[in-house]
Order: sequence, then C-alpha cells, then structure tokens
Amino acid sequence: MISIHPETTRLGWIGTGVMGRSMCTHLLKAGYSLSVYNRTPEKSDSLVQMGARRCESPLQVAQNSDVVFSMVGYPSDVEEVLLGESGALRGLRSGGILVDMTTSRPALAEAVYDKAKQMGCHALDAPVSGGDIGAKEARLSIMVGGDRDVFDALVPLWKSMGKTYVYQGPAGSGQHTKMVNQILIASSMVGLCEALLYATRSGLDPQTVLESVSSGAAGSWSLSNLTPRILREDYSPGFFVDHFVKDLGIVLDEAARMQLQLPGVELAIDLYRKLQGMGHGSSGTQALWLAVSR
Amino acid sequence: MISIHPETTRLGWIGTGVMGRSMCTHLLKAGYSLSVYNRTPEKSDSLVQMGARRCESPLQVAQNSDVVFSMVGYPSDVEEVLLGESGALRGLRSGGILVDMTTSRPALAEAVYDKAKQMGCHALDAPVSGGDIGAKEARLSIMVGGDRDVFDALVPLWKSMGKTYVYQGPAGSGQHTKMVNQILIASSMVGLCEALLYATRSGLDPQTVLESVSSGAAGSWSLSNLTPRILREDYSPGFFVDHFVKDLGIVLDEAARMQLQLPGVELAIDLYRKLQGMGHGSSGTQALWLAVSR
Repeated sequence: MISIHPETTRLGWIGTGVMGRSMCTHLLKAGYSLSVYNRTPEKSDSLVQMGARRCESPLQVAQNSDVVFSMVGYPSDVEEVLLGESGALRGLRSGGILVDMTTSRPALAEAVYDKAKQMGCHALDAPVSGGDIGAKEARLSIMVGGDRDVFDALVPLWKSMGKTYVYQGPAGSGQHTKMVNQILIASSMVGLCEALLYATRSGLDPQTVLESVSSGAAGSWSLSNLTPRILREDYSPGFFVDHFVKDLGIVLDEAARMQLQLPGVELAIDLYRKLQGMGHGSSGTQALWLAVSR
Repeated sequence: MISIHPETTRLGWIGTGVMGRSMCTHLLKAGYSLSVYNRTPEKSDSLVQMGARRCESPLQVAQNSDVVFSMVGYPSDVEEVLLGESGALRGLRSGGILVDMTTSRPALAEAVYDKAKQMGCHALDAPVSGGDIGAKEARLSIMVGGDRDVFDALVPLWKSMGKTYVYQGPAGSGQHTKMVNQILIASSMVGLCEALLYATRSGLDPQTVLESVSSGAAGSWSLSNLTPRILREDYSPGFFVDHFVKDLGIVLDEAARMQLQLPGVELAIDLYRKLQGMGHGSSGTQALWLAVSR
C-alpha cells in the first residue's frame, strides 16, 4: 500500500468550489504538490497562486497524481469526472487511489470501486459534513467507505482536512453514513422551524425562548447555530438548499430500494421543494423557515 | 412582594412523583419547611422521613404555606388540585403564591392566574425540562410565565431546583415555551429513529455511525443521550410516552387555535400513538424506535 508523504506523494483535486478550495489549501500548506481541475477554471486561481498546477481535464489531473480527490455537485458529475471519456480513472497509474468526497449515490460509489479494482487501482467514498466553515477550519467529519487498508494509508491526508475521520465499512458505506447525517438534519430543521413558528405566533420572544430550550433535551447543533441566522434574516448558504434536496432524494431512492418508510424525510423534502419553488435553491438550508412560516 | 427565606417562608408541594420528590428534596435540604400532598400518600413517605409534613388535601397544603408548588400529571389534575373543591386556591392566604410546574395548557395557566388575582394571590406557570435526572441533580430548565416581580421574588427557590430559569412573559408563557421545547424534541426523535433505521438496514454499524455524525451539524441531545439507550434496548422511562403524547396534543390544540400547520408534530404524535397502541405508554420516549422500525 502507498505511503503518504508530502515529498513523494502527488495529489490531485477535481472540483475546487467553496469547500474543495478550502480543503486544497490545507493540503498545499501541508507541503503536498497538487494538480487541480475545475469546470470553471477561475475558481482554481487562488490555488494556482499558492503553487497548484492547473490541469485541462480530470484525466490530466490523474496522470499527474498518486491520489485523486473529487468534490463536485451531483452524482452525474461524479460519473463524468471519474468514469467519463476524459475522467480520472483513465489517467490513473496502477495502484493509484480515487477518493470521492462528493455526497453521492452509494451504488455509484460501489461502481467506481469495482471499476477502479479492474484497473488495478483503489477507490474510497469519503463524503464530509461540517460545511464551508468546517472545511475552512479543517474540522470536517469525513465518513469513509472502501478498503480499510486504503483508509489507513490516507490518515495523514484525513488529518489535514478533518477533525473526525471514521472508516465505516465497504464501498458505499461512507455515502450511507452521510445519508444518516442528512436524515438527522432534515427532521431537525423541520422541528426548528415549527418551534420557531409556534414561539413567534404565541407571542414569545424567540431569543428568550432559546435561553430556556437550547441547552437541554431539545438542544441541537441546528438550533444553536441556525436559529440565530434565521432571527437576523440571514439566509446565505452554509449549505445550499439545492444540494440538500439532492441528498434527500438519494436518501428516499435508497429507502425505496430497501423498502423503508421514512415519513420524516418525505415531509422535509416536500417543504424544501416548496422552498426551491419560492426561488431559494441557492439559499442556505435555514431558509426553510420561509417555507414553514408563510 | 414576599421575601423568600428558609426561616420565614413556608413551602407546600402537591404531587410528589419521581420528579416532584427530587425537587422537594432540594428544598428540604436548603432548610425550608415543607407541607406535602400526594394522591398516593406512600409516594411522600421518604419526604416525611426527611421532615416534611404530610397533608390530607391540596387545600390543607395551602393553609400551611406561603408558596405552593404543584407538579401533577394532566391538565385535569391541575384543575382539580388548584381550583377544585379541596384545591389549593381555597386555602391560600392573601398574597400567597401558586406555582404550577406541571406541563399543562397555556389557557389553564391564564385561568389560574386570573382566579388567583381575584383572591388577592399570585400564580406562575413554571414547567420544566430536564427529566428525572435533571430534577435529581438540580439541573432543570425552568420556564416561567406570570408577573415578573413574582418570578424575581422566587429566584432563591428556582436556584434550589434548576440550573436555568428564565422569565418568558405573562401567564401561559412558561407553558408556551415548554411546548416549543416539545416540538423540537418531537421532530428530533423522528429523525433519530429514521436515521437509525436507515443505518441498520443499509448494513452500517450504528455505534460507528454515531462517531461520525454526533459531533457535527446532525448532532443533538437526543442523538447523544437516547441512541445509546436504544442500542442497548433500554426503553425504561426518562420521560413517559403517555405524557409526551399529552404534551403534543396540547401543542396541536394550541396550533389549531392559532391556525398553524405543524406537520412535523402531527407525524410525531401519530407515531407515538402507534407506540401507545403497542403497549408502550409507560415506556420512555426513546421507545419510538419500536414503532418506527417495525
């Protein structure tokens, strides 16, 4: 198995959006050489200024890398940048490693894993939680599926980007774990908005209510971190509504496949779709308040 | 306004169940004289051994007290012990204070407040969160409605029983705040159980999943404190299912009155009623897992 060291390991990164860019910055600061690709090249400019090499395609990134990370938007993007005509897998050396950090379909993670194996390569699914701030502060939680020895080999890289990194099981398990994370957030957001609606309509002062309820059995990360944003009408994205709807769609597809009923998730996706219909796809998830309160 | 001091203030307590008993213990230890009443007298035995005086009725408690607390089961019990034939209000001296700590209807809190005023007395609604353990460790959150000067006068008593005590507004505001608390818990419990269902069915190890999800944006008190109980199949009550259904019923009645839709609460009460139907009314709220997973 590969041994990771800044002087000998060449890294690649596909998808330098808000989160990817922060994560790349940590890797560059740790001393790694880094090849980057983004569909909109300007989004890699700051990384190139820090010493990253700009590539013309995912394939070119892979030709210059031992470990290739991807962090893009949708499962269709993952398919294209990893498995497509000019995708990373076609350029990766034998023994090379693909790490997809996009939140995507578990079945796609399994397919990437199988195809990588066929080429003598490795693949991990490693979605994260913690949002833009977690990425910036290297405090992400990284949930990993694939082979344990590959997970173990990459520990120095997980450490550069995250605070919590846990091996969850075979290919797809990282994605499944992220789905669990999103299920928890979905109902938590519905509860938060309904609680806020009840509080305001019954004449309470929401800020004073928070003093009573946030540190006890009703407490949650969402309540403590997103309610203040709602109260100052700040709907800017920590995490995009459009992406959350994508994630909950994957959850419900997987649930249908496993013949599970998840009415809490169904309720949440309905409300979030209503919010998209109100033109808030690019707002942060806390904008759910606007759909619940109108 | 009354000045509270262990040597001069006579306290009374109606309803010495699990939580009431712990709270009375703190008051006795703080040096107050205490008159107690419970429908099932044996439940006051330990308090009588500590020096409390046993009374035959709520009325008799009030005749011996300057401040009377009540903590009973349902709004109908509150009505009986405070406003009934042998209820506390009939025995309370002018200037005396009623403090109802039961989770009950906001409108009833307002009625008690008005009736107390007519008698030259005061009333506060002061429901709590924190459960049996919070009561035992004097770490409750106490949410108070009524007159602010009465709330202020009772600070030494709040301090004996709770960690957080917040004045929320006029009569009924304590109850409304507690409803907000229960709305948050309701959706949180649904999310927790659906997440656990997805995790187990997709082949993940729930304990390992918790390591990834509990400290980030999906984190909550319920997730950290109740999931471990579910995983060891411990459905013993911190908080009774029957009482939670009562609380959510009050929430929905109030919501209907305010013409609010709370679909998350509706979903939760349906699942909890299903759980009651399975014979789990006296289990703890974490038993919701049994209704969601079957």
